[in-house]
Amino acid sequence: MLWKPDRLSPIPIYLQIADRLRIQIDQGEYPPGSALPSERKLSEQLGVNRSTVVLAFTELRARGFIESRRGSKTLVSANKWRDAADSTPEWHRYAENGSLLPNTPYLRKIREALSLDPSIIDFASGKLSLDLSPVEEINEIMKSSFYRPDSENESMLGYPPLRRALAAFLLKYRGIQTTPESIIITSGSQQSLYLITQCLLSHGDAVAVEAPSFALSLSMFQSAGIRMYRLPMDEYGVRPDGLREMHKKYRIKMLFINPNFQNPTGTLLQEERRRQLLETARELRLPVVEDDQFSLTAYDMDVPPPIKADDDAANILYIGTFSKIAASGLRIGWIVAPDSVIRRLADARRQMDLGFSVIPQQIAAEFIESPMFLPHLERLRQELTRKRDLMVEELQKQLGRLVHFAIPHGGLSLWCQIVPEVNDSQLLAEALRQGVAYVPGSTYGAAQGYMRITYARPDFTQIPAGISRLGKAVLSVVNRSN
Amino acid sequence: MLWKPDRLSPIPIYLQIADRLRIQIDQGEYPPGSALPSERKLSEQLGVNRSTVVLAFTELRARGFIESRRGSKTLVSANKWRDAADSTPEWHRYAENGSLLPNTPYLRKIREALSLDPSIIDFASGKLSLDLSPVEEINEIMKSSFYRPDSENESMLGYPPLRRALAAFLLKYRGIQTTPESIIITSGSQQSLYLITQCLLSHGDAVAVEAPSFALSLSMFQSAGIRMYRLPMDEYGVRPDGLREMHKKYRIKMLFINPNFQNPTGTLLQEERRRQLLETARELRLPVVEDDQFSLTAYDMDVPPPIKADDDAANILYIGTFSKIAASGLRIGWIVAPDSVIRRLADARRQMDLGFSVIPQQIAAEFIESPMFLPHLERLRQELTRKRDLMVEELQKQLGRLVHFAIPHGGLSLWCQIVPEVNDSQLLAEALRQGVAYVPGSTYGAAQGYMRITYARPDFTQIPAGISRLGKAVLSVVNRSN
Repeated sequence: MLWKPDRLSPIPIYLQIADRLRIQIDQGEYPPGSALPSERKLSEQLGVNRSTVVLAFTELRARGFIESRRGSKTLVSANKWRDAADSTPEWHRYAENGSLLPNTPYLRKIREALSLDPSIIDFASGKLSLDLSPVEEINEIMKSSFYRPDSENESMLGYPPLRRALAAFLLKYRGIQTTPESIIITSGSQQSLYLITQCLLSHGDAVAVEAPSFALSLSMFQSAGIRMYRLPMDEYGVRPDGLREMHKKYRIKMLFINPNFQNPTGTLLQEERRRQLLETARELRLPVVEDDQFSLTAYDMDVPPPIKADDDAANILYIGTFSKIAASGLRIGWIVAPDSVIRRLADARRQMDLGFSVIPQQIAAEFIESPMFLPHLERLRQELTRKRDLMVEELQKQLGRLVHFAIPHGGLSLWCQIVPEVNDSQLLAEALRQGVAYVPGSTYGAAQGYMRITYARPDFTQIPAGISRLGKAVLSVVNRSN
Repeated sequence: MLWKPDRLSPIPIYLQIADRLRIQIDQGEYPPGSALPSERKLSEQLGVNRSTVVLAFTELRARGFIESRRGSKTLVSANKWRDAADSTPEWHRYAENGSLLPNTPYLRKIREALSLDPSIIDFASGKLSLDLSPVEEINEIMKSSFYRPDSENESMLGYPPLRRALAAFLLKYRGIQTTPESIIITSGSQQSLYLITQCLLSHGDAVAVEAPSFALSLSMFQSAGIRMYRLPMDEYGVRPDGLREMHKKYRIKMLFINPNFQNPTGTLLQEERRRQLLETARELRLPVVEDDQFSLTAYDMDVPPPIKADDDAANILYIGTFSKIAASGLRIGWIVAPDSVIRRLADARRQMDLGFSVIPQQIAAEFIESPMFLPHLERLRQELTRKRDLMVEELQKQLGRLVHFAIPHGGLSLWCQIVPEVNDSQLLAEALRQGVAYVPGSTYGAAQGYMRITYARPDFTQIPAGISRLGKAVLSVVNRSN
């Protein structure tokens, strides 16, 4: 249940609950004659006292919407609403339609738990915490910005000054030579991948992905009917040797890679392997989608270049975002691609959303061109190092030899293996019970017993507390298995 | 060709053109041995002097990228680029893939013409002109806003304060009783329709639409494999009598209507017909998508209520937007729907774009709650009336009995029929030649010889000039036909 009463509202909580239920009854969520959830259950779901729910029910009874209880049940009045409910569409059935499949159950479960219980410490989210985001910088830019809505600025490629700023940014920070016309602005990497999948691939096409990888957590590919084949990884990143054979066998149409601080493993693809991958792709004329979200977070090492910087033959569609280095609240990503692809994506976008507001694009353009950007990046890298170090320390202290991991040099999270192997579903349930959330490795296609735990989201006090809770969960599940 | 040289850049135009061509050669747009476009053609496309293109070619020749001419042709050097081009993916072929079909040719043609020639007067766009948009108001709000990116604010339903503001707005301005939890924020009506189509309908499903209608101009439905059946319209709006039979025959899954100032015809659905439609929908338990973009523009009449205000049985998914009443630069729309639908759309959205920036949502929330909103709306309605009156006057003066139309009382455009009938394709070509753009009625599924001409986009001096050009085009095509 997504809804919660608004404690800041002048309307009493019990009345808010009564109104809410009345609307659900109106809309056929609770048809005539059906039972409402019990007072106990509602009070738990809504996080209110049971007496508040009792008051709400009294109100609804007085207004004739619900009827006297039978046993412990509260029923929706049958007479009053018969007409309405018989004519209401079967919305539940409609909601089961459509080409977009529901998201993976673990991720839904984690989100649900986090939204119901704010005391759960969040090691699951891939977002930066508020203290790592350039909130003051963005506020300063907002105050000095002018809204300029004109048709040129509403190009389907995105706000032209942002594309110009990005072309300079990509050259300066990523060694990529491109032009503003080869860039399309998206509302983040998810939309970039969605556009590529919807416009350049067809139902039944085969693609190669790293295993484990973020791509394997995306229902998006399944929704589009794309078959995914797994390229295995080790500590040096994805192994390119199987690609040629895989291509031959399954007619691979596209390769998705995340070479720098890969999500979820944090690995950095070895230089020799990069060369091999690019060579193989050129030989096979295979398009490669390079997802480069994390490079600029690099700590205790230089920022690694993207493969795209060596892409003379335009094999690579390059995807980037501000969400992992600046602010997920801006929701700005981009794709660098050849002309024919850019044109296709821009045209297709008219069917999806006609682009999005110029305002965050304006702010992003001003931010990367401002003298505030580099100091922000430096601060971000320092703070991420501190958070990583703290989490590593706590993990070693509290879980000791139960957990194995490599220390990442960039990105937002640690990739941990529990030894002895535990069951992902059991461990997640226990962790949520202890009050800590993380993402089980099997979400990304890994074997049982892996966890992705993010240190970028929690604050400095939450890290020790969260690892302590995680430790209890791991111990409890490991002991139960023995 | 989307690209144009940037006249404000410090880089000389000829060098910009040379760099651009080099990148296109790099990326395989012009493979080795292939011919570049002629100097004459390029100078036309780019809107520069031929001598500038000659300079760009000289530069490229000096750098070894292109070779001496054979006849009048300029060829891409074969040796230098052989390796690259043989390994470049066949991007053109990839761009032909995907489930999203290309947009309708008329609309592409119009957009192309408008982007190549800024002197064309735009009666085609459905956007408000800058002088009708609340630019100062939005600037004022931006200056006093604070960016607050936190996880609660990044809900997939959209920014919670905007949903609360919208629930109050919908009650006050549209007579719709709803809750913030029954609203999902989208980046405009196009995304609202896309979400509904992708999540609630399946490939092969049948829907009923008004004919003519905006829906019939959308490749989106074809892309999703939806079959569209047409309900005929007259001056009182869509005729509900055929719906029951159509439902029986084709198993209609959903009805799409735009009852107030319908796009493109501008008609207002008669009250008796509204009742009939809703009754039939209830009887058939048929979901109805009510698109309510234009109601608040109503001039010389009261703002008409939506059908949703009478929707006791929750048959209606209600779609609204700020684009037609405030600012298309905000790109904010919404859907009001039952819980199960809202949950489904919010989940599916994670695959598409993970939502969009909170900043425009914050601004929109503050705008509709501010004392500036109602005066803006009043001014908008007055200015639209003046623009409509001017366009009507000019049409009568310059086209006289060649054009028939009803005077609309809301919306942004006039729906005109040319008598005697003309061919849409001929008339559009001639109009663009004369320097004026409009949308041919057949785009919306109408017979030949209809035009949708927008008065909201051009300014007061462009309206007489544009109608004069349109008059010349009509006369020329009518005379040619006789």
